Amino acid sequence: MIKKDLLIAAILIFTISISCDSPEKNQTEAIVKSPDEDVHIRFGVDDYGKPYYSVLYKDNVVIDTSFLGFEFKNHPPFDDNFKITEIEETAFNQSWDMIWGEQKTINNKYREIAVRLQEKGESQRKFDIIFRAYDDGIGFRYHFPEQEGVDTLIIMDEITEFNLTGDHTTWWIPGDWDSYEWLYNTTKVSGINALELAKSKSGLAASYIPENAVNTPVTMRTDSGLHISFHEAALIDYAGMTLKVNKDELKLTSELVGSDRLGYKVLRKLPFSTPWRTIQISEDAGGLIESKLILNLNEPNKIGEVSWFEPMKYVGIWWEMHLGKSKWDTTRDMSKNIKDKKFSSKHGATTENAKRYIDFAAKNNIGAVLIEGWNTGWEQRPGMDDREGVFDFVTSYPDYDLKEVVKYGKENGVEIIMHHETSAAPRTYEQQMDTAYSLMEALGVHVVKTGYVGPIIPKGEYHHGQWMVNHYNNAMIKAAEHEIAINAHEPIKGTGLRRTYPNMISREGLRGQEFNAWASDGGNPPEHLSIIAFTRMLSGPVDFTPGIFNIKLDPYKEGNQVNTTVAHQLALYVVIYSPIQMVADLPESYEGQPAFQFIRDVAVDWDQSKVLNGEVGDYVTIARKEKGTNNWFVGSITDENEREVTIQFDFLDEDKTYEAIIYRDADDAHWNDKPESISINNMVVKIGDQKTFRLAPGGGLALSVKPVK
Amino acid sequence: MIKKDLLIAAILIFTISISCDSPEKNQTEAIVKSPDEDVHIRFGVDDYGKPYYSVLYKDNVVIDTSFLGFEFKNHPPFDDNFKITEIEETAFNQSWDMIWGEQKTINNKYREIAVRLQEKGESQRKFDIIFRAYDDGIGFRYHFPEQEGVDTLIIMDEITEFNLTGDHTTWWIPGDWDSYEWLYNTTKVSGINALELAKSKSGLAASYIPENAVNTPVTMRTDSGLHISFHEAALIDYAGMTLKVNKDELKLTSELVGSDRLGYKVLRKLPFSTPWRTIQISEDAGGLIESKLILNLNEPNKIGEVSWFEPMKYVGIWWEMHLGKSKWDTTRDMSKNIKDKKFSSKHGATTENAKRYIDFAAKNNIGAVLIEGWNTGWEQRPGMDDREGVFDFVTSYPDYDLKEVVKYGKENGVEIIMHHETSAAPRTYEQQMDTAYSLMEALGVHVVKTGYVGPIIPKGEYHHGQWMVNHYNNAMIKAAEHEIAINAHEPIKGTGLRRTYPNMISREGLRGQEFNAWASDGGNPPEHLSIIAFTRMLSGPVDFTPGIFNIKLDPYKEGNQVNTTVAHQLALYVVIYSPIQMVADLPESYEGQPAFQFIRDVAVDWDQSKVLNGEVGDYVTIARKEKGTNNWFVGSITDENEREVTIQFDFLDEDKTYEAIIYRDADDAHWNDKPESISINNMVVKIGDQKTFRLAPGGGLALSVKPVK
Repeated sequence: MIKKDLLIAAILIFTISISCDSPEKNQTEAIVKSPDEDVHIRFGVDDYGKPYYSVLYKDNVVIDTSFLGFEFKNHPPFDDNFKITEIEETAFNQSWDMIWGEQKTINNKYREIAVRLQEKGESQRKFDIIFRAYDDGIGFRYHFPEQEGVDTLIIMDEITEFNLTGDHTTWWIPGDWDSYEWLYNTTKVSGINALELAKSKSGLAASYIPENAVNTPVTMRTDSGLHISFHEAALIDYAGMTLKVNKDELKLTSELVGSDRLGYKVLRKLPFSTPWRTIQISEDAGGLIESKLILNLNEPNKIGEVSWFEPMKYVGIWWEMHLGKSKWDTTRDMSKNIKDKKFSSKHGATTENAKRYIDFAAKNNIGAVLIEGWNTGWEQRPGMDDREGVFDFVTSYPDYDLKEVVKYGKENGVEIIMHHETSAAPRTYEQQMDTAYSLMEALGVHVVKTGYVGPIIPKGEYHHGQWMVNHYNNAMIKAAEHEIAINAHEPIKGTGLRRTYPNMISREGLRGQEFNAWASDGGNPPEHLSIIAFTRMLSGPVDFTPGIFNIKLDPYKEGNQVNTTVAHQLALYVVIYSPIQMVADLPESYEGQPAFQFIRDVAVDWDQSKVLNGEVGDYVTIARKEKGTNNWFVGSITDENEREVTIQFDFLDEDKTYEAIIYRDADDAHWNDKPESISINNMVVKIGDQKTFRLAPGGGLALSVKPVK
Repeated sequence: MIKKDLLIAAILIFTISISCDSPEKNQTEAIVKSPDEDVHIRFGVDDYGKPYYSVLYKDNVVIDTSFLGFEFKNHPPFDDNFKITEIEETAFNQSWDMIWGEQKTINNKYREIAVRLQEKGESQRKFDIIFRAYDDGIGFRYHFPEQEGVDTLIIMDEITEFNLTGDHTTWWIPGDWDSYEWLYNTTKVSGINALELAKSKSGLAASYIPENAVNTPVTMRTDSGLHISFHEAALIDYAGMTLKVNKDELKLTSELVGSDRLGYKVLRKLPFSTPWRTIQISEDAGGLIESKLILNLNEPNKIGEVSWFEPMKYVGIWWEMHLGKSKWDTTRDMSKNIKDKKFSSKHGATTENAKRYIDFAAKNNIGAVLIEGWNTGWEQRPGMDDREGVFDFVTSYPDYDLKEVVKYGKENGVEIIMHHETSAAPRTYEQQMDTAYSLMEALGVHVVKTGYVGPIIPKGEYHHGQWMVNHYNNAMIKAAEHEIAINAHEPIKGTGLRRTYPNMISREGLRGQEFNAWASDGGNPPEHLSIIAFTRMLSGPVDFTPGIFNIKLDPYKEGNQVNTTVAHQLALYVVIYSPIQMVADLPESYEGQPAFQFIRDVAVDWDQSKVLNGEVGDYVTIARKEKGTNNWFVGSITDENEREVTIQFDFLDEDKTYEAIIYRDADDAHWNDKPESISINNMVVKIGDQKTFRLAPGGGLALSVKPVK
C-alpha cells in the first residue's frame, strides 16, 4: 500500500507576476487557458469596477459573463468599484499518488491566475480571486488577505454567478440545507422547482429548503452535448454552497447555507480563502467521472501514513434493522437505570449476532463488520425533543460485549466498524469525542460510521452550515489523531478533503439503499444510480451500501423492493466508488448464491479507473484495475430501459490473455418481474476484443477479468 | 439423523414348507415369482440330478437353463445326482431406514424359495439354494448346513452359470484379481477379451487376469432393450466372484478369486452360506441405479448407532501429490533414524498446509480434511520389495503435528480424515490396527481412508481373494468398535455390507479421478462416468473424488487433463453417490469461481433419489432430495456426444414453488476445447414444468432446486 502522497513529478514551469503601477494603465481583463488550451477563463472588471468572469470551451461560451461579489454584515459589500492591481500567473504540473482511491496516480496540471483586486474608493479594501484552468474544467476561489481596517468578515451572502448559455438539461436535487437524501430530478434549468419539493412529504428526518436552489454537484448537458457539473472543493470553515436558480435568466447564483441562530452565513477572521467554486467540463458524460479536478484543488495529505486503514468490504448489523427483522434499541422501557430495563428479544446488536456476522465476513473475503445499536441511548431516542446528552459512545448494552466482539473479530481477521449515531446533537458528541476515540484506539478499532439523523441541535443550525462544517471537519481531524477513519452519514458533502485527510474515507449524502426498504414512495427508481454516478459521485466516495440479493425483501417488507436486478447490484461495486463497500444484505440472503462470488472477488482499491461509456441518467460502464494486481473489474448499469452495452477491451494489457467471469442479467431478467434472474458465464478476452451484452430493464452487468496464469 | 434401522413395516405374509417324504414323488421343479409377478425364477434338478435354474422377465427368458455346482479339494464335487427334499416358500415385505444413503426408506419386498437338496447316492450330502425374486431382479445363495461327514469344505471352484439368451451389449472390466481400476469396455459378450488386456500396459501397481473373465457389477443390454446387471451381495468370508466368459455359448460362469499361496479358492467350516449371486433387471437403464436389491440382500445394521459419522464433503492433501505439486514422502534419504533425514521442501502433509486446508474447508461448508503422507514409511516405500513393517500408523513426520492439526480442525468445526496406506501389506496393518484405531478414537477422529496399493503380501494372495476379503471385513468390524468409518481404496468391491456395517462408508474400486493426472493413456474418457453410474455404482458408494475445476491441470501436468467440462464435474456430486464426497481440486483452483457455489451447497445425504433418464455409456440424469429438507439437486452428464436433456420436474412437491440455480455448459463449452466454459442461471420451477438443456460434448448439468421461502 502506498503510505502517503508520492511526488512523481513536480514541475513548476513558470511564474509571472505582472504589477501595474499606474492606475491609468490598469489591466481590466485577463485570460487563463488550460494546459491543452481548450478551456479558457476570462476575468475582468467592468466599467463600474464589478468583477466578472466567463468560461469558454473550444471557443464556445460555457459560462457567460457572470459577476462575483459578497455582502457582509459588518462591512459594505464587495460588488463594484474594484480594480486589478496585480495578476500572478502560474503553470503547475505535478503527479501525486493516492493512498487509496479510484486510481494510483493523479496528474495535477493546470494554469492559474491570481488576480489582486482593490477598491478604487477610500477604503481600498482588497481581495484576490484565484482562477485555475484545467483540461477538465475550472476552479476559482476568493482570498481575503490581511489588510488594515478589516479584521473579521461576517458574510451575509456570497454572490458568485454562473450565467448559463442555454436551458440545459439538468440533474438536480433541491438545495436542502439539511439533507442530500433526495431523488434526482431531470428537468431543464427552467423547470427546476425546489420549493415545490419543500412542500412534499419527503419522509426526511431533517429538511429545509428556503430557496429555489439546488445542491451540488449539479450536472447539466447542453444542447450541443457538452457536460458540465458545478460543485465546490476544499470546504473548510465556511458554509456549504447551494445554487439559487434564476429560471428566467438561466443563471445560478451561490446561496450559502446560513445559521438562523447566529444570523449570518459565514464568520471568518482575515486572512482566509473560500472553498473553490468548480465547474467540471467534458464532451462525454464519462469524462465528468474521470475528472480529478475536485481532488486536485485540495491540499496534499496532512496526516501522514494511514497504514491503519486499508480499503475493504464490510457487512453489518444494519439492513436487518431497516427490514424490521431486528431493532437498534433494546426496549421502550424508560427506566432511568439501564440495568432495570427489560430488553427486547429483537435487539440486533448482540454479541452472538455480531459473531455470526464476523463468521460470515471471515468466510467471504470481507474485512469488517459494522454493528449499529450497540450503545446506550437508542432506547430513549424515539420522539425525544431534546437529543442532547442521550447517546453514550462508550457504554454497551448489556447483551453486547464490545471487547469480546472486537477480540473475536481479531481472532478471525475481521475488523469491527464502530458506530456513533449523534442524532444530530453534535455538542454531545464533541463532549465525548476524545473518550470515544480513545476507547476505539485502545481496542484497535480504526473505522467509525458516524450519523447525524434529525434536525441539528442547537436549533437554527443546519447540517450544511459553517458551524456544522467545522464540526464535521474537527471530528475528522481529531479522528486522524486517534488513527480513526470516518464514514459519515447525514454528512456535509464531499469536497475532496479526502486528499488532505485520507481518514475521511466515505460518506452517505445521498438517497441510499435503505430507502428501498421503507420509503413509501416506491424506493429508488431504476435510474437512480445512473444519475448518482454523474452527480453525487463527482464529490467523492459514496457509501451507498449495495449488494441486495433479496430484491423483493421477502418476508420482511411487503410492498417494498429494490428496483434493480441482482446483476445491477453487483455492478454497483465497480460503478459506485468507495474504499469501503458494504455487502449490505443479510448473510442468509447470500447463502447458495453463485453470484455472490463476484462480491467475494471484487476489489475495493484501484490502480486505474476508466469510464467506458455512459449517459447521465441512462447507463454507465466503468472498468477499474485492482490495486497491485492485473485484475480488472467492470460494472455497467442501466436505468428502466433495456439496452445493449458494448465493451471494448482496449484497457487490457497487450501481452496477456484474460479470463472474464460475466455476471449478466438473464434473458428474462427485469427489475420488477425477474430481478433475481442472473446468468454467469466465463469467457476468454484479450485486448482488441469487443463484446456486446444486453442489460435488462433496471439491469446491470459485472465482470471480473483476470489474467490467465 | 436416523440412528439405526427402523422397522417401518414388517409383514411376513406366509411360510409354506413342503416336505416330500416319498423319493418317488420328488418334486423336480419350483417357481418363485416376484411380488409384481414380472420376474420368475424356475429351479429344478434334471434327470441326472443336476441343479439348474432359469430366469424370466415378463415371460421372456432372461437367463436360460443354467447349472449350479461346486468342486472341492477335500470332497467329490456337488454337480449332479441331487434331489429336492424340501422347498420352503416365504413372502417378505419390510421397510427399513438407511442411516445414510441414497434414500431414507427402502422397501425390502420379495418372495423366496429355499430349496433343500440332497445327494441321492450313499453320501447323502446336503446343501440348500435360496432364491429370492424381487421386482427389480433376483438373488440366490448356497447354504451348506451342518451335516455328518462334512466338517470343512475347501472350494476349488464354484460353478454357477448364467446362460445368456443373446449376444448382449456389455459394459465390462476384466476379471482382475487385484484391481478394478480399468476403463470399461463396451462390446458384445462375444467380444469380451480380458486376456488381451492382461497383456496391455495398464500402469496398475497390481494386476492379475488369469481368465477371460469380467469383474462385477457387469451390465448388459439385450437386443430387446432389457437391462441386466450381474453382481453379488454380502461377500463375507468367501472369495470374490469374477465371471468367466464363454464367448461361443454366450455363457458366464462364476470364477472365484483364488489363493496361489493356499492352493484353493475358499475354505469354510460348516454351516455356512455363500454370498448372494445377483441379477438386477430393469426395462430402462435408470432402473438399475434405483434398484436396492444388493442392499436388501444384506443383513440389517449390526453396529447400532453411528452418530459419530455424518455424511460430509471433504478436501484433502491429495490432488496436489497427484499433480506433483507436493510429495507424500519427505525425503529419499534412507537413513535409519528419521531424525537424521533431510526433509523435502515439497512434503505436502505439513501442519501449516493442513491448516490451510482446514481454513478452506471451514469457509466452504466442507466437513473434513484428508491428509495423506503424514506418517513415517513413505520415505522408504518406492521400489521396496518387502513392504511389511514399513508403514507406521501412529508416528507423524516431524513437520506434521497430528494433535495440533486435529485440535485446529475442531476449533474450526472441521474433522480430520486419517489416512492409513498399507501398501498392500495387510499383516503389518493388522499388527498395528488396534493401536492405530485407539489413537484415532482418543483424538476423536472418526474416518479413515485406507489404501492397499501394490501386490498383496504375502505373495500368492490377491486383493479379491478370501484371505483379503476377511482382512477388509475384519478391519471394518474392528473400526466400528472404535467408532471409525472406513473409506477403502484398492478395496474389495462393495456388496451391500454398508447396510450391516454402516461404518463402511465408501470405497474406490474404480479408475478414479487421479488417472486423469498421470495416466499416459489420456486419462478417463468423457464417457467414463456415464458407464460407472450403471456398473460400478450398482455395488455402492463411489469415492471418485470429483470437482476438478482446473481441467487442464495447468501448470502441473502438461499433456494431461480431465476429459470433461466443469459442469460435468459439478454434476458428479449428484450422479455419483457417496456419503463422503471429495472436493478434489486444490483450494486455489476454486478461488473466484462462481460455480463453486454448487459444491458448497450440494447435499451429501438424501431422502430420495430418482433417475430421470439415461442410457448406459451415453448419459444419465439423477435427481436427489436432500435429507431432512425440501431441497433437490439434479445432476446430468453426457459422454463425448453433445445432447439435449429434458428434465421433467415431476419430482417436486405440488404445493411449492422452487428456485433452481442451473449450472450448465456454456454454448461454447467442450470437454477439450472449452472445458471450463460454464453458464449459471436461475429459474423458477414447479411441478409439471419441463425444461430442456444442452449438454456439451463431455459436458454436464447441475441444478440446485430449493423452495422459495
